[in-house]
Formats: sequence, structure tokens, C-alpha cells
Amino acid sequence: MYELGVCHRNITRADGAAADGLAALGSATVHEALGRVGLMKPYMRPIQTGVQVSGTAVTVLLQPGDNWMMHVAAEQIQPGDIVVATVTAECSDGYFGDLLATSFQARGARGLIIEAGVRDVKTLKEMNFPVWSRFVSSKGTIKATLGSVNIPIVCAGAWVTPGDVVVADDDGVVCVPAAKAVATLAAAIKRESFEGEKRDKLASGILGLDMYTMREPLAAAGLKYID
Amino acid sequence: MYELGVCHRNITRADGAAADGLAALGSATVHEALGRVGLMKPYMRPIQTGVQVSGTAVTVLLQPGDNWMMHVAAEQIQPGDIVVATVTAECSDGYFGDLLATSFQARGARGLIIEAGVRDVKTLKEMNFPVWSRFVSSKGTIKATLGSVNIPIVCAGAWVTPGDVVVADDDGVVCVPAAKAVATLAAAIKRESFEGEKRDKLASGILGLDMYTMREPLAAAGLKYID
Amino acid sequence: MYELGVCHRNITRADGAAADGLAALGSATVHEALGRVGLMKPYMRPIQTGVQVSGTAVTVLLQPGDNWMMHVAAEQIQPGDIVVATVTAECSDGYFGDLLATSFQARGARGLIIEAGVRDVKTLKEMNFPVWSRFVSSKGTIKATLGSVNIPIVCAGAWVTPGDVVVADDDGVVCVPAAKAVATLAAAIKRESFEGEKRDKLASGILGLDMYTMREPLAAAGLKYID
Amino acid sequence: MYELGVCHRNITRADGAAADGLAALGSATVHEALGRVGLMKPYMRPIQTGVQVSGTAVTVLLQPGDNWMMHVAAEQIQPGDIVVATVTAECSDGYFGDLLATSFQARGARGLIIEAGVRDVKTLKEMNFPVWSRFVSSKGTIKATLGSVNIPIVCAGAWVTPGDVVVADDDGVVCVPAAKAVATLAAAIKRESFEGEKRDKLASGILGLDMYTMREPLAAAGLKYID
Amino acid sequence: MYELGVCHRNITRADGAAADGLAALGSATVHEALGRVGLMKPYMRPIQTGVQVSGTAVTVLLQPGDNWMMHVAAEQIQPGDIVVATVTAECSDGYFGDLLATSFQARGARGLIIEAGVRDVKTLKEMNFPVWSRFVSSKGTIKATLGSVNIPIVCAGAWVTPGDVVVADDDGVVCVPAAKAVATLAAAIKRESFEGEKRDKLASGILGLDMYTMREPLAAAGLKYID
Amino acid sequence: MYELGVCHRNITRADGAAADGLAALGSATVHEALGRVGLMKPYMRPIQTGVQVSGTAVTVLLQPGDNWMMHVAAEQIQPGDIVVATVTAECSDGYFGDLLATSFQARGARGLIIEAGVRDVKTLKEMNFPVWSRFVSSKGTIKATLGSVNIPIVCAGAWVTPGDVVVADDDGVVCVPAAKAVATLAAAIKRESFEGEKRDKLASGILGLDMYTMREPLAAAGLKYID
Repeated sequence: MYELGVCHRNITRADGAAADGLAALGSATVHEALGRVGLMKPYMRPIQTGVQVSGTAVTVLLQPGDNWMMHVAAEQIQPGDIVVATVTAECSDGYFGDLLATSFQARGARGLIIEAGVRDVKTLKEMNFPVWSRFVSSKGTIKATLGSVNIPIVCAGAWVTPGDVVVADDDGVVCVPAAKAVATLAAAIKRESFEGEKRDKLASGILGLDMYTMREPLAAAGLKYID
Repeated sequence: MYELGVCHRNITRADGAAADGLAALGSATVHEALGRVGLMKPYMRPIQTGVQVSGTAVTVLLQPGDNWMMHVAAEQIQPGDIVVATVTAECSDGYFGDLLATSFQARGARGLIIEAGVRDVKTLKEMNFPVWSRFVSSKGTIKATLGSVNIPIVCAGAWVTPGDVVVADDDGVVCVPAAKAVATLAAAIKRESFEGEKRDKLASGILGLDMYTMREPLAAAGLKYID
Repeated sequence: MYELGVCHRNITRADGAAADGLAALGSATVHEALGRVGLMKPYMRPIQTGVQVSGTAVTVLLQPGDNWMMHVAAEQIQPGDIVVATVTAECSDGYFGDLLATSFQARGARGLIIEAGVRDVKTLKEMNFPVWSRFVSSKGTIKATLGSVNIPIVCAGAWVTPGDVVVADDDGVVCVPAAKAVATLAAAIKRESFEGEKRDKLASGILGLDMYTMREPLAAAGLKYID
Repeated sequence: MYELGVCHRNITRADGAAADGLAALGSATVHEALGRVGLMKPYMRPIQTGVQVSGTAVTVLLQPGDNWMMHVAAEQIQPGDIVVATVTAECSDGYFGDLLATSFQARGARGLIIEAGVRDVKTLKEMNFPVWSRFVSSKGTIKATLGSVNIPIVCAGAWVTPGDVVVADDDGVVCVPAAKAVATLAAAIKRESFEGEKRDKLASGILGLDMYTMREPLAAAGLKYID
Repeated sequence: MYELGVCHRNITRADGAAADGLAALGSATVHEALGRVGLMKPYMRPIQTGVQVSGTAVTVLLQPGDNWMMHVAAEQIQPGDIVVATVTAECSDGYFGDLLATSFQARGARGLIIEAGVRDVKTLKEMNFPVWSRFVSSKGTIKATLGSVNIPIVCAGAWVTPGDVVVADDDGVVCVPAAKAVATLAAAIKRESFEGEKRDKLASGILGLDMYTMREPLAAAGLKYID
Repeated sequence: MYELGVCHRNITRADGAAADGLAALGSATVHEALGRVGLMKPYMRPIQTGVQVSGTAVTVLLQPGDNWMMHVAAEQIQPGDIVVATVTAECSDGYFGDLLATSFQARGARGLIIEAGVRDVKTLKEMNFPVWSRFVSSKGTIKATLGSVNIPIVCAGAWVTPGDVVVADDDGVVCVPAAKAVATLAAAIKRESFEGEKRDKLASGILGLDMYTMREPLAAAGLKYID
């Protein structure tokens, strides 16, 4: 259950090198390396294309149609952070635009993940401030009701604790617990290291059926080839 | 992040009297008493109508198209529990039907909350086993991949820890942290106690405008009456 | 564009006999009689079953997560009215429950049509206060921002002017302009008067193909029967 | 690809006893007996509750907003048939109401499955004419463009050939190929015959873990119990 | 309620300079300047990116699967207009493609807003003819049933009167009543004029908390900082 | 009904020249040439923009969360094929990424159509391997349960037989039966041949009203011009 009306100033951020290094691996590889958990629902979509980021989470709990806590969050941002925001009810309003992005960017934020709407998307892209959101909407918000900053939140079905690493790209958004960041980076790099060789084999025409020795298990499972 | 492949046998259930007592208050009043947090998304719908239940959560993390962990969960059920289940991806399959309901009921479960599909809904209603789900589907599931039982889960946007109190009725599903169950019950009862008097006044034709003394703040906010 | 912050006290209600009489015809027949316009989107669903109502519209424009104007609207209700409410953004919150229903019923309202959520649906059904809504949600609302009462609104894709007749049943919701209520009632009654005879013929086994003399136009359109 | 503008008068209906007998087994059991294929998407919902039917399919391909072919289909109905209808594009209009239901019922139809909208649902329920549809809508349709009757169609993701057996209940809709009806009935009955004994065991408190001997495979898969 | 079968030839277009000038402000700023009303639902999406337009509305009411009235509308287009179209029921068909776009462009139209589908989107983008729609679909339409041109319509939840100004960009679509166009432009320009200074301050690291003097109201609302 | 556990090695591919030639016509023109049937639902969207392809279908039936059969399908691909895949239940998982794309491309596949999710979309676009899918998701799949390859399938509401021609572009995806490919190409070319002249006329300002001689039928249908 959410704690309302608080802003935690001291959070334990994941190891910086791991937080930085996960971006290059991408959300799909990181999700596998994590054991297939931590993924946000696929309705979270990037407003831009081709951008891959990772960083430590500053979390925000918002109220419907109210973005007041985004300003409280701005002060808590440190270079390398990604802001992750959710709302106490489903809301498509545009909680975030170019002014807040200017502020977040000045504080060193690498991006925003929000289960709600954003606006000024053309400018956000020009500013190279990446955003993953559920909606895009011109509708602005008021500043009247408290939520919280840096409490654990549920965002798009994923549990995000302040300081966790968030990895986002065109495929989606994954949250890596701070305590697992280093191990996950190692596992993801190892996973990735096998991919080049596999890709070369597949590119040369070798089939996955043979490369992964699937023919026998497929036959055992009862697959019948019909001519 | 979810811990996979575990079943916790010892969970701390909320105070029994509070867990029992919250049903009568209903999800809307309990949600208010909690400070307006803890609500599952409104796509969780009851298969029956008119049923109001509360109980302590036994949680289940399922894999897509696989209900194996429901059987592991059955053994952990104690009288007064409500099973709360989620899946690692969105899935509409029918994870639960009359056989599992028979087993759950024999163990003393009061109902099921599942962010996925169920089947045999006609029989479930005849058995008086209440269910809140996202989908109804005839499609069955396999038993092949591990999830977990009694770990904290995200279900329909709400964070549920084993032992929390779940309150469900025709309006939706609310999760009350175990540590707040007693206080929430007290707050909800207090809230409810004012309602009878209010209802009588409103039924007699007194307006909310007057009963809640809203006329002045409305005027202050600038409301204009036009004849 | 909506006029904000106003409550119109004098509205021109449709002819009372027509407003009363349209209920019996049902939304499908009234929609046909109107020339196939005026229908709300099919995501508006009744919380009850088997209820057919009609009445004159008192309209409400609400803000996201805020039901303040429902109390302003209550005072404007006259016996025979149906309250029609919309929100300036999509919102699933429960704007209306048993207390407001008690007040509305005391004022003589026949029902509520709302493009948002409602709660206390079990009690609303017990009170015989019919509701058509887009969502059901336990989540309550605040009372902080002005909307308007008795201005023309868009509700679920239909344009509703205060005083129009609203007809609602299990099939959906139709809005009949006040100026067309009398003529629409006449047209709907006439339409209905032919249905009994048609039903008898069809029940006796006569085909629509023959009763409506469709065989020739079907052949002209090129329909081929294949044995 | 659909053949347009044709009505096939001679279709091969599935074995009558099998077509009749499958209703009692229900869509979930039949779906399992079929090998887990043939299920329509779960957005197909009954307008009534508690009804379980089966029958042989008369298929209809409709055009958007046009129900002309439903009248052509009526003539092809034989006692024991269920009409299965789809549209060439997604459409929520009310293609079917009480008059067509009267005609279909007079011809011996047992129900309607339609990936589109229906209306007059209150009357349809009073007539005991069961319907599974995607939408409910007051909006009527015109009669202007040809579709087809008794061609193979795709309805809600399932391939339906005229004469196939359709089984529908509160859980959903399954289509059984005519050639497999007899074998599927036998398999479903066999499957069902084991259920009583299982239900008794589970009701007595025996766990599925033991009844299905799952403890060993769970341990082999790595499940860890934590106290 | 819609008037069917008419085409109004004389409409009162908003002031041309205001209609032209609003594009540069963008839908988000215009929506604020209007008092936060007039926004279409966020499911209206551009087929292109980075385009910002404004113009005076020529409205079209279409029938399901039928684009006949688009041709009637073409004749009513004057340079600087934007065509705004809706359908009497939800329909995803492709009502508009490159041929109609060629005609609209030849008449001086600046774009199309349609609560339905469009096709030939690759060519439309190459032609620089901007479109905001709900769907994209290859499916064409027929020309058989009358709708209307230049009547007030509801498009994606917004009320649009012929001659109103429509402002559309990557964030969404806003409709400004003709009578408010000049004042809205002035208000939007004023609003925009403050943004540069704010942006500079935020870019320099000044926080919104200080720039907007939010610290005191946040404390008054009860925000607690936790170290 | 789907045949499970089989892979057909010999399929009859549509005429190669027709399969190749249809790409240039585009899905909208081909859909018209086919008589307006064969279109997949509009929720199938390209991950890239501006790509237009056609090819012969190799079909795949997948199980939820399981992409094993994609590897079986790879071996059946011949140059000029497009893989068309569906799942036995709705599933948003990422069934396909850059490794499989490398393999498919090495075999000569021209693209993938899948009613499920894909991942590695940034890399897929860099590889120029076009994909139309329902979802994008980082979530991977397992390889445990048999589906089938080269059986007739339903994909996004369209019936696809192995060897059929699939035409896909920014507007959507159409399936042309192998036996109709040559005739459809001819019809589409003929249709297209009239378009240049029409486009020139419309670009010169001639109205569709005149070019298609619609004024008379519009008047006959009752259209009224109002000044």
C-alpha cells in the first residue's frame, strides 16, 4: 500500500557502473538475464525510436490529473537517474512536457517512464529527452493533491523500488532490483557474448534446429513431418 | 522483482477479527478508510453479483498458460484465506475451474482474485465460490513451469503481500496491508457510522449542498448560477 | 466548447408525456424512429438488467476524479429527470454511490447516465436506482474543481442538451432532442404497431425473405444459391 | 478468402446425436477433448447466464452495418442448428433483435453466435433464445449489400465450417469439426467421467499435489519450500 | 442530434489570422488557453510526426463503411480549411486515401481529422497531407448512404461546429470555437511568452519548487521529507 | 480446427511472378481487387514505416509463450516466402527477435506477420527485416510445446493457407489465395492504371462529384444543399 504525502531524500541507488552498463544490453537481454521477471506491461511505449537507456529510479506517485509531485521529484534527481511515475488511478492526461523535461535534464535525468500521458512530444524528441508512456495527450494537469516521491510503486505491472535500475528501449521497460544490478549485468553480458557466434551461424544458413539440437526433442514430443 | 520457484509456508496473516470484519464495510468504504490507495484496476470483475468477502491473502505467481502453482497454493490455504493470483505476462486462459474450487473450498478459502481467466463459471456460482477475474475463458492450462507461492505480487496494479487483507465486492477489490487491518477496520466502521444519518437526511430531501455546506466554497470557486 | 463554472437553473424540458412515453418503446425502436442518430457508444452499460427508463436530461460536466458538480446538479433535478454526466477527460473513478443516489431519488430522478465510473452498485440495484456507466470502481472522488450543470455536453459520443429526452435500457442509451420528442414518440409507436403482426407471421414460420419481399432484390444484387 | 454472394443450400451436418450430446459437457471440457483448439476469443460473451447449448452451424458472412444475409440464413436453418455470423470488418451494430429471433426460433435454431452486436437483449432472454456476441447495441442495420450463407468463416478467431458443431456456455464458444464430433463426444464423456471421483477426493481435503502426484516433478523442477 | 442528408454551403469561418496563428502555439498551449476544454480523446493519433497545423473546420458526418459524403465535403473546402469527419457508429474502415487527399489538397485543405480509419498512409505522408485518425486500415468504403456536411458534429468526444478552428499536432487535436479564436490566440501567445524565461531558469538548474514557490503550499498540504 | 504437431513440407506456392508483383500494388488496392475480403484486423501494425512487401505464406501455429515452432518453420522457408504466425490464445510475448530474423533472412524470407509480440525491433529495422505484429514486448518465450507448421491458420481474423500470397504495407496486411494470385494481380494492375488519370484530374481541381458523376445519385438519395 502506498505511503502518501512523503518524499524520501535518501535512497540507495544501484551500483553506478552496473546501472550505466545495462543500457547497452537492451531490455530483452536484461529481462532474460533477470530470469524473466521485472518487465512492465507492453502498453508502455516510447515516444521516440532507437533510444536505449538505463539509470537508477527516482519514483513518483501521482494523483489523477495532478502533476504536483513531479516538481518535488525534480529536486531528488541525481545525474544518472530515470524518473519512474505512476498514478493512483488510470489517467491519460499529459503530466509532463518540455518545461519539466528541461528541469529534469538540468538535474541530470536520463529519461522518464510514466504510466499516464505526456505532451510536447515533438519538443521532447528534439531535446533528446527519452520518454516511455502509456498515453500522449495535450491535456495539462493541476497541482493540488499530494502523492509521494521515492516510495516503492507499481508502474505498468512492475514493482519499482527507488534506486532500482530501469532499462528501456524500443522493446519495452524492465526494472532490475538494485541488489541484483551487478549480477544481472554480468549475466546479461555473458548471454550477449554468445549471440555473435550464433548470429554468424544462422546468417550462414545453419538452422536453429541443428544449432540448438532441437530435432530429437521435437521428434520425442511427437512432431510429424508430412510430405 | 519476483522470486521464482519458491513457496513460503509461514506467512503473517492479518488480525483475524479485522480480516473477517472488513467484508461488511465493502471495498469502497475500505478504500476511503485506507486513504484511497490499494485498489486493483477496475477491469477486475466478479463472476457473480451481490457477494461481499474479505480474508487474508495467499498469493500465487503463475506463468502464461500454466496453473501448476495453484496446486502448490492449495496446500497453503487456511480457513479464512483468499487466494490472489497474477501471471508474469498478460494471459486470458482459464486457470481455475470447478475442481480447483472444490479443493480451495475444502481448505477453507473464501474466494479467488486472479488477473487472468477462469472457467466453469456456472458451477463456481452454484458452489458459492466467489471469483474476481479479468477474463472468462474455456481454455485450460498446462502444468510445466514454476512460479511461486506466498511472495509479494502485483495483481491488477495493486501490491499484495501474503497475509494482507483483501476486500472484494461488486465494486472491485482492495488490498489492506496486514499491519493496517485493525486500524482500517476501525476507520471504516467510524466512516460507515455517519452514513445512516446522512442517508436519512438526503432521503428527506435535504441537499448535499446544505448538508456538506458546499454553497460557500462553490461560490468562492466562482460557480455562477444562471436563470 | 464547454462553458465552465456555471449552473443553468432554467432549462426547457421536453414535453412530459413524450418524455414519459418513450421508455416503453425502448432504445432500439426510438433510435430507429429518430432516423438512426443520437445513440451513445456501446461501451455504456447498465449496472442492472431488465430496466427501461426515459426522462428529461439534467446534464453535468465533471472534472477528473472530482464529483463536486453532482451535488450542484442534485438541486436542479425535478421529478422525471435523468442525470447525464460526462468528464473533461477519461476517468474510471466511482463518481456516484448510494448517498448521491438517495439524494437524486429524493429529488425525483429516474436514473443516471455517466461516462465514468460508479460504485455501491449492489446497493444501487437494491434501491432500484438505475445507472448506465462506462466503468464500475470503488475509488471515490474529491470535491475541488468546478465543472458545470445544465450546459450542452458530449456523453459517450452523443450530444445532450439539457431538457432532451434520454431513453435507456439493456441495449444502450439514446438521446432525443426536446423539440423532437413528441414526433419521435409518434413515429416509434407507429413503428412498434407493425411489429406484433410481423412477429406473429415470423413465429408461424413465414420467412423474412417473403414477408419483406427480399427474394427479388437479392437476386438482382446477384445472390447465387448453390445446391 | 471468403466467397461473396452465395448461399449454399446443402451442407453436411455433423452427426445429430453428437451435436446434441456435446451441450451437456460444456465448452471447457469439449475444448480439452478436442486437443485445445477451436476456441473463439474470450471477448465473445453470452447475453444470458447459465445456458449451455450445442448444435450444427449455419454460417453467415455479413457486411458492416448490414444484416441482409441474416434473412437469407433463416431459410437454411433446420431444427438443431446454431447460426454463426461474422462481419467483413469490425462492427458493433445491433444486427439481430427479437423479430429475427422469432423467425430463427420458428425454424428450430438453438441460438446465435455473432462477432458483432445484437439488440432487444431483454426480449431475447425472455424468449429463451440464447446469444453469444461481442457487443450489445441499439443501433440497427440496413439491407443493401450481399455477403454469403453457409461458407466457411472466421468467427472471433475460430474457423467455422457449415455443419460443424458449436458448443457454447458461460465460459465461451468452441467449434468442433463435423468429422470429429462423434470422437470428441466420446473423449469428452470419458474425461467427464473421471471428474466426479476427483471432485469427491478434493472435497474430502485430498490435495491435487497428492492426487496428481505433483510433489516429485515440482521438486525436480526446483521448487523450494521456505519456512 | 444529427441532421441527416444536408450540406450547408455557407458557414461562418473563424477569423483567418487567428485560425492561421494558432498552429504555432500547439495543441497543448491552446488547450490551456481555452480553459482546458475542447480536446479530442487521446486515441486520435497522427499518421505523420512533427507536423503542427491549424485551420477552419469543414465537418462531415459519415455512415459506417461509406465515404460518399467526403466527396460532397470536397466541394465545400476553401483554402485554409481542415476537414473534420465522424461516423454514426464506430468503424475502422479506410475512408480516405491518396485520391481524396489529392482532391482535398487541390481545394486548399490543410489536413484531415477523422474518427475512423484512413489508408495509403505512406503516400499521404509523401504528399505532406497531414492526417489524425483513430485507425489505419486498407479496407475501402462504399458510396451509398447519405450523411451530412457542415453540421455540428461530435468527433472523438469533442463538439465541432463548422468554421471552428482545429489545432493538431503530435500531442493531439483541440477544437477552438470560432467566436473564441481571436481571444484564444492572444491568451495562448501570452502564455507562450512566459515560457522562454521559465525554460531558461529551469535549464540553469532552478527548480520548479522555487520558481513556482511551491514549497510553502506543499508543506501546508502536509508533505513530509524523510531522510 | 487446427491440426497439432505436424509440419507439412510440401506446399503449393502461388505463382511466383504474381506473388512478387503484388507488392507494388499495395494492400489497399489488392484488397479492392480481391473483392474486399482477406484483410487482417487493423490491430496488425508494422514495426517499420514505408515498407511494402509480398510473398508466399509459410504458416506457423504457436502455443502461448512458446516459439519452438518458429525454428521448425525456418527450415521450410524458401526464397520469396513470408512467415505468417498465430497463437492458440492471445499472447503479447516477444516470439521473434534478431537471431530468428537472421535465420529467416538467410533462408530468403521477406518478412514476418505475427498475431503476437516481437522484440529487438531496433535491430530488426536495421536488418531491413520487415515485421507486422500485434504487440512489441521484451518478454522471451520457451520451447516446450508443439504447434504446427504449414497448416491453414487464422491470423488476425484472416484465413491463411500455406502458399497463399501475403501483401503487407503501412496500411495493413491482406491474404490472397494462391489460386487467385494471377487474376488478382491483373485486376489490381487494371485498377491502378486508372488512378494516374484520376489523380491528375483531382489535382487540377476537378471534383470527385463530377468525375464520378455523383451529383445526380446524391440528389436522388435526397441530399439537400442549404445556403
